Amino acid sequence: MFYLVIDLLGVVSFAISGVLAALDKKLDIFGVFIIAFVTAVGGGTIRDILLGVEPVTWLQSNVYMYTIIVTVITGLLFRKKLKYLRTSLFLFDTIGIGLYTLVGVEKGVDAGLSAVMCMTLGTITACFGGVVRDTLCNEIPVIFHREIYATACVSGAAAYFLLRTLPISDDVIFLISIAIVIAIRLLAVRFGLALPNIYKKESKSAD
Amino acid sequence: MFYLVIDLLGVVSFAISGVLAALDKKLDIFGVFIIAFVTAVGGGTIRDILLGVEPVTWLQSNVYMYTIIVTVITGLLFRKKLKYLRTSLFLFDTIGIGLYTLVGVEKGVDAGLSAVMCMTLGTITACFGGVVRDTLCNEIPVIFHREIYATACVSGAAAYFLLRTLPISDDVIFLISIAIVIAIRLLAVRFGLALPNIYKKESKSAD
Amino acid sequence: MFYLVIDLLGVVSFAISGVLAALDKKLDIFGVFIIAFVTAVGGGTIRDILLGVEPVTWLQSNVYMYTIIVTVITGLLFRKKLKYLRTSLFLFDTIGIGLYTLVGVEKGVDAGLSAVMCMTLGTITACFGGVVRDTLCNEIPVIFHREIYATACVSGAAAYFLLRTLPISDDVIFLISIAIVIAIRLLAVRFGLALPNIYKKESKSAD
Repeated sequence: MFYLVIDLLGVVSFAISGVLAALDKKLDIFGVFIIAFVTAVGGGTIRDILLGVEPVTWLQSNVYMYTIIVTVITGLLFRKKLKYLRTSLFLFDTIGIGLYTLVGVEKGVDAGLSAVMCMTLGTITACFGGVVRDTLCNEIPVIFHREIYATACVSGAAAYFLLRTLPISDDVIFLISIAIVIAIRLLAVRFGLALPNIYKKESKSAD
Repeated sequence: MFYLVIDLLGVVSFAISGVLAALDKKLDIFGVFIIAFVTAVGGGTIRDILLGVEPVTWLQSNVYMYTIIVTVITGLLFRKKLKYLRTSLFLFDTIGIGLYTLVGVEKGVDAGLSAVMCMTLGTITACFGGVVRDTLCNEIPVIFHREIYATACVSGAAAYFLLRTLPISDDVIFLISIAIVIAIRLLAVRFGLALPNIYKKESKSAD
Repeated sequence: MFYLVIDLLGVVSFAISGVLAALDKKLDIFGVFIIAFVTAVGGGTIRDILLGVEPVTWLQSNVYMYTIIVTVITGLLFRKKLKYLRTSLFLFDTIGIGLYTLVGVEKGVDAGLSAVMCMTLGTITACFGGVVRDTLCNEIPVIFHREIYATACVSGAAAYFLLRTLPISDDVIFLISIAIVIAIRLLAVRFGLALPNIYKKESKSAD
């Protein structure tokens, strides 16, 4: 129940980020809905397909679809107020990323994959909804050139495997790892951290 | 046999729409072929992958490949005449959309999915070939910002489930539902119907 | 062992082509890595998904991931020297394309598919990593409008099925077919061959 609530909070915040991206591109209602949908379920769908877990998760329960429909309608009705909610949305989004990462990691563990591949699946689950969103909106995915985002996912996923070597219960490990993803992302945004810039020398004058 | 003919008419008209999009982008022969191919089979491929029906349908029979090869060659040879055929092509395309929608719905029913998910699969089958086409051509998918298209699919798919509550044979339900998709799309284009514009107030002067 | 070495040479050269594309787009380190990764494994992943071979190949062994990580780090450190290596890289790339094509063909044969579909899978394996790379970089895939590339793959794959009618051992057929892909690509680049231009008449003045 607790996880379902967090899961749906993640779906809502990812869907809202899709609504905002789609409104920027002046898509129609159907387009807004599709972008919201792929942003919310895209990462998990790619994970399920790579693993061969099919039918994919969202096909097996209507709750994701209904949550996204309600989110999109609400988002469209109150779209002028969405900007005042950016802080709350960012928080939900960050919680969603943390949860999605660890859900992806555990699905990899269940499938008997190596730690490195579980970390990869966790990062895909959390990040690739946004990649599909940006690609469909005809933009280079934002996580490829801005924002500490994947780094937070990879770190939390790595922490999960380090913590498993300690005598801690699985539930606690799961929650601590999520907290690490969230903490890194919050700190990165708060202090303006970014990956080291590899273009410094070349682009001094041009950029 | 009857369904195969309609199915291949759908493939032909979808492939032609791919040829036209690829010619607009000045792609080479191979590029034109690939775009035609993904437009024709893309929606069904995504549906099959989401369901876990693999190898995907078009891998299991050469008829789709050969139909598309012939269509592309014919389309390229007569490409200056394609514009005079727009009405016929639009009709084939609309029939194809109707058929694809209901084929997708029935695959969902066969897989034991909920009505909402079957409607989703039907819409994906009919619409996502065009989404892949436009994405590969580096455009925002046209169905996200123009044309009543998905609405027709969703309506026909919904009609299928309403009709199933009546004492009508499955084949008749299938055909009526296809007819509903076709009718809505034809009426929408004839009378210039579109989804309600959600940008009215913001873009009065700019748009 | 021999095949693993060629396979990893292919991964390295595909990953480098991803690094170069990502650097052109000024992506950050994570973005460079993802583009390198999808370029190297994208074609095989799409092939595996279409066939239903899941978990996909690269999830089952860390060697691809580690090879790509080392390639990306090396590529970034020596990125100013990459241009002097273009000839070697082109050679690796061409060898990789040859190998990937035939690996794809044989996976199709193992799955009991028709010759035409095996040729299709081989071409997808060799070419679609680059398609995903260019799509994520927000470009129309380069193989759709430049370079003899797919033609070489299709020819080598066709040769494989012709040679199988002769009394030659499977290993020899495999190697000859790879050599044909490589030879066609090298000759095409050396002599500036391209697919017949279908835009001649229309674009005499504009192009």
